[in-house]
Amino acid sequence: MYSIVYTTTSSKEEASKIARELVEKKLAACVNIHPIESVYPWEGNIEEDKEFALSIKTVTSGIQEVTENIRKMHSYELPAIISWKISGEEKYLEWISDNVK
Amino acid sequence: MYSIVYTTTSSKEEASKIARELVEKKLAACVNIHPIESVYPWEGNIEEDKEFALSIKTVTSGIQEVTENIRKMHSYELPAIISWKISGEEKYLEWISDNVK
Amino acid sequence: MYSIVYTTTSSKEEASKIARELVEKKLAACVNIHPIESVYPWEGNIEEDKEFALSIKTVTSGIQEVTENIRKMHSYELPAIISWKISGEEKYLEWISDNVK
Repeated sequence: MYSIVYTTTSSKEEASKIARELVEKKLAACVNIHPIESVYPWEGNIEEDKEFALSIKTVTSGIQEVTENIRKMHSYELPAIISWKISGEEKYLEWISDNVK
Repeated sequence: MYSIVYTTTSSKEEASKIARELVEKKLAACVNIHPIESVYPWEGNIEEDKEFALSIKTVTSGIQEVTENIRKMHSYELPAIISWKISGEEKYLEWISDNVK
Repeated sequence: MYSIVYTTTSSKEEASKIARELVEKKLAACVNIHPIESVYPWEGNIEEDKEFALSIKTVTSGIQEVTENIRKMHSYELPAIISWKISGEEKYLEWISDNVK
């Protein structure tokens, strides 16, 4: 089974660093990064910050290790890490499998 | 259980207004906004418009109230409102729970 | 049942062409396009390329035909084609059904 793991960072550099390290370690087959604005509560106020979102394509069995690696690399104390299961074109899913350990 | 609710607006201002109000009312813990181009059929033609997408992180039990609030605030007669269930890092999911009512 | 099909292209023009053709052929009701940076392994290196992501809203029963059409139009030998099931606001889901064949 396959999943997208989604997380956000405060800079493009941090997003790239996490993406490259997950792909180098064969924990993810491909990562898509895009800029976002994030709206969330903080100490009684509503904050609105520029961030970057990572959509990490991997195998569902690897989510735990992806999560641990993101937490180690990430500058936030509590990074947003969520995931959902995906289906896909058979050959592309095989390519994901071939590119994760 | 937790979900992403996804909707689109015609302006950045409307996206921010909806995001802030959902977070203020504790209907969502966090909203990520990003610009998109939307391709859809309209009166026999194919339209291509700039829009903004909101990815709203909330509890699955709150989707109905999130939907009603979006429809009240939204300038479209029929806004796109879809959702899907998510898993996630345990502490981050707790943070979502703590920030919705 | 309804799904998002997600794919990526190397240019905005290719993304628009695929989106318009899927909507014209009533294989998708709406397509949202946004720019991304894609990080992936290629011949022993980590590549980082600008791409465009398409989020294609359609009926789950149409995924096979959407996939075949993307593969025919796409310039990549092995395009990333993944999908996940969605719920949604009842009237919006009806609108999707009305706009796919």
